[in-house]
Amino acid sequence: MKKTIAMLSAVAVAAVMQVSAQQAIWGVPDIVSPEINSDLTVTFRLKAPGASKVQITGDFLGLPTVDMARDSTGLWTYTSDVIAPELYRYNYVVDGLTITDPANVYELRDACTVFNYFIVPGEGSELYSVADVPHGSVSKVWYDSPALGMKRRMSVYTPPGYESDGRRYPVLYLLHGMGGDEEAWLTQGRTAQILDNLIARGLVEPMIVVMPNGNASQEAAPGETHFGLVPPTIALPHTMDGAYEEAFPDIVAYVDRTFRTKADKGHRAIAGLSMGGFHSLHTSKQYPELFDYVGLFSAAINPRVEGSEVYVDREAKLKKQFAEGVKLYWIAIGSDDFLYNDNVAFRGVLDSLGLPYEYRESAGGHIWKNWRHYLAEFAQKLFR
Amino acid sequence: MKKTIAMLSAVAVAAVMQVSAQQAIWGVPDIVSPEINSDLTVTFRLKAPGASKVQITGDFLGLPTVDMARDSTGLWTYTSDVIAPELYRYNYVVDGLTITDPANVYELRDACTVFNYFIVPGEGSELYSVADVPHGSVSKVWYDSPALGMKRRMSVYTPPGYESDGRRYPVLYLLHGMGGDEEAWLTQGRTAQILDNLIARGLVEPMIVVMPNGNASQEAAPGETHFGLVPPTIALPHTMDGAYEEAFPDIVAYVDRTFRTKADKGHRAIAGLSMGGFHSLHTSKQYPELFDYVGLFSAAINPRVEGSEVYVDREAKLKKQFAEGVKLYWIAIGSDDFLYNDNVAFRGVLDSLGLPYEYRESAGGHIWKNWRHYLAEFAQKLFR
Repeated sequence: MKKTIAMLSAVAVAAVMQVSAQQAIWGVPDIVSPEINSDLTVTFRLKAPGASKVQITGDFLGLPTVDMARDSTGLWTYTSDVIAPELYRYNYVVDGLTITDPANVYELRDACTVFNYFIVPGEGSELYSVADVPHGSVSKVWYDSPALGMKRRMSVYTPPGYESDGRRYPVLYLLHGMGGDEEAWLTQGRTAQILDNLIARGLVEPMIVVMPNGNASQEAAPGETHFGLVPPTIALPHTMDGAYEEAFPDIVAYVDRTFRTKADKGHRAIAGLSMGGFHSLHTSKQYPELFDYVGLFSAAINPRVEGSEVYVDREAKLKKQFAEGVKLYWIAIGSDDFLYNDNVAFRGVLDSLGLPYEYRESAGGHIWKNWRHYLAEFAQKLFR
Repeated sequence: MKKTIAMLSAVAVAAVMQVSAQQAIWGVPDIVSPEINSDLTVTFRLKAPGASKVQITGDFLGLPTVDMARDSTGLWTYTSDVIAPELYRYNYVVDGLTITDPANVYELRDACTVFNYFIVPGEGSELYSVADVPHGSVSKVWYDSPALGMKRRMSVYTPPGYESDGRRYPVLYLLHGMGGDEEAWLTQGRTAQILDNLIARGLVEPMIVVMPNGNASQEAAPGETHFGLVPPTIALPHTMDGAYEEAFPDIVAYVDRTFRTKADKGHRAIAGLSMGGFHSLHTSKQYPELFDYVGLFSAAINPRVEGSEVYVDREAKLKKQFAEGVKLYWIAIGSDDFLYNDNVAFRGVLDSLGLPYEYRESAGGHIWKNWRHYLAEFAQKLFR
């Protein structure tokens, strides 16, 4: 009797509450999307018989949106042109509503936006695909920042073998841009994959990569603090008022006492994208004793900043920084980046001061594709 | 001239290629969803003027779907009844198409299904909310498994202070179910939050929690292997054929040489949900020298299994396991779980053999809510 009741009850519950693992397992999609064809076109599919109009939007299209074609079963399809090897993003727009692809579990978040991504294989994307090579470890750790009066979270990549080889490693501090957090360089930046692959190919000095949270009022990425599952906020206070740069030694102190680092100037690099480039510029000159390598990736050179002590006497501090020795000051930007002119001007300042730097101009603009490639290029110049 | 061209070019690129960080930043939603009201009702919103019918589906509704109401601007809304404190999942169904909530970046993946989640605050959910307490570290590491002929990935939680206190810790090996991987216990299981909170309250012995990948043919979770961004597969080979259990010592060996563990039977626990419970049952009796604590959470007791040596002489091996000493054998299941009867039968087997266990029956079925609570209860019984 009990067995029958239990079974009936189970059936009833299962029917009403569709959250059992079994139900989820039965949610396997019956379409493939995206499908990367052998000719490197890509086919996208959406089963939406109830929709009147479905479009695809993505950074590989060359247009804001493209209409998808519907068949008699309500399956919508679009096949792209041949796409160059790279990591791309897309969404669907269903009767005006932007959604993710229900058949593609691979998503990324950029600030408040969630989109799907895919990788077209080949030479341009090998570096950030997972390859059959040794993999480093990725950790999320909390450190104390007395200067900011809070405990804060950051991501740390340690190279393959770190757990067992007892060796000490140099450190690259890699900073994100506005709207980002301590996860951005790992998710959109593919930092772990890039480092795994460069190390496997012997193209970089194996290193630890520290990815802090650059929003000085934030403890951690959205959802990872005791404020709960709050909507990501863009306009955060204290992101560019000098507080973060001033507090940076708290990060270095934690890293040097927690990880087996080569704790000296010649084995520390700092680099970042956009706001992170701004932070790298100012942190490295605020603490010229810390970093021999500086990388500005599409750096935000001239935002409106508060009058922190960090920002005064910029040129005097730059001179002092270079006088103390800089092995590499690397400035990279895309020719279409809206920050291009600010970077031209900044290079002009360095030129007028006689401070040497390496300049790398790529195609494109303020996009992650450039930052992934800048990371790969910059990393190969470090510590050797 | 160059400045004008650069600006025009930047504008053109920005217009066409909507992937700049600035564009993402401008994608801030102008609605709040979900909104947890002070009376613990929850309001869900979707801006979809082009939709004809929008429903919400979720595990708090008591019905498979509920229609949302549309206003004149095309904003769809639903406000729930009062909801008990807990973690809940939901999706929207727009003209028959199941999607995630575009205004809610918080998502979870269960096998092939991506859904949104939210937490109603209060006593029932405190344990897996992020609280203002010390936080442990969460790492993704790769270990070598000679028995499986591959390197494999797993998640490891270390308790707050681990990096600096030099202490040794006991270890809980926590196993996932079918369709899951080394991320499931962290994402849906909220393991890091649960352990942080239990430790902060002094309710558990601080411990390391190891969350391996139980799909013996898989190196790692979908997207984390060199097979690339493949659709998650449910019907994986070798998940329940004895290979995983036989290879388990490779995991323990790696953990004991890599982390500061108390490497003895009295300081090792193994527990798992569903297929993970099955794995815990068989691994612990295959290697009775390893674990003093065993936890079966809604365990899959009687799947169709291959005739591995691991599965023969089950009762003799159980007797031997208990003869070598078991401090706690804990069996938990929901009264509505479809595996309820198999667990009744298994307890009957233990009874007939005179092998003592603790039994915990909860309400509900084969759901993550139960597994989170079982973890919290079981952890408090370990190592003291």
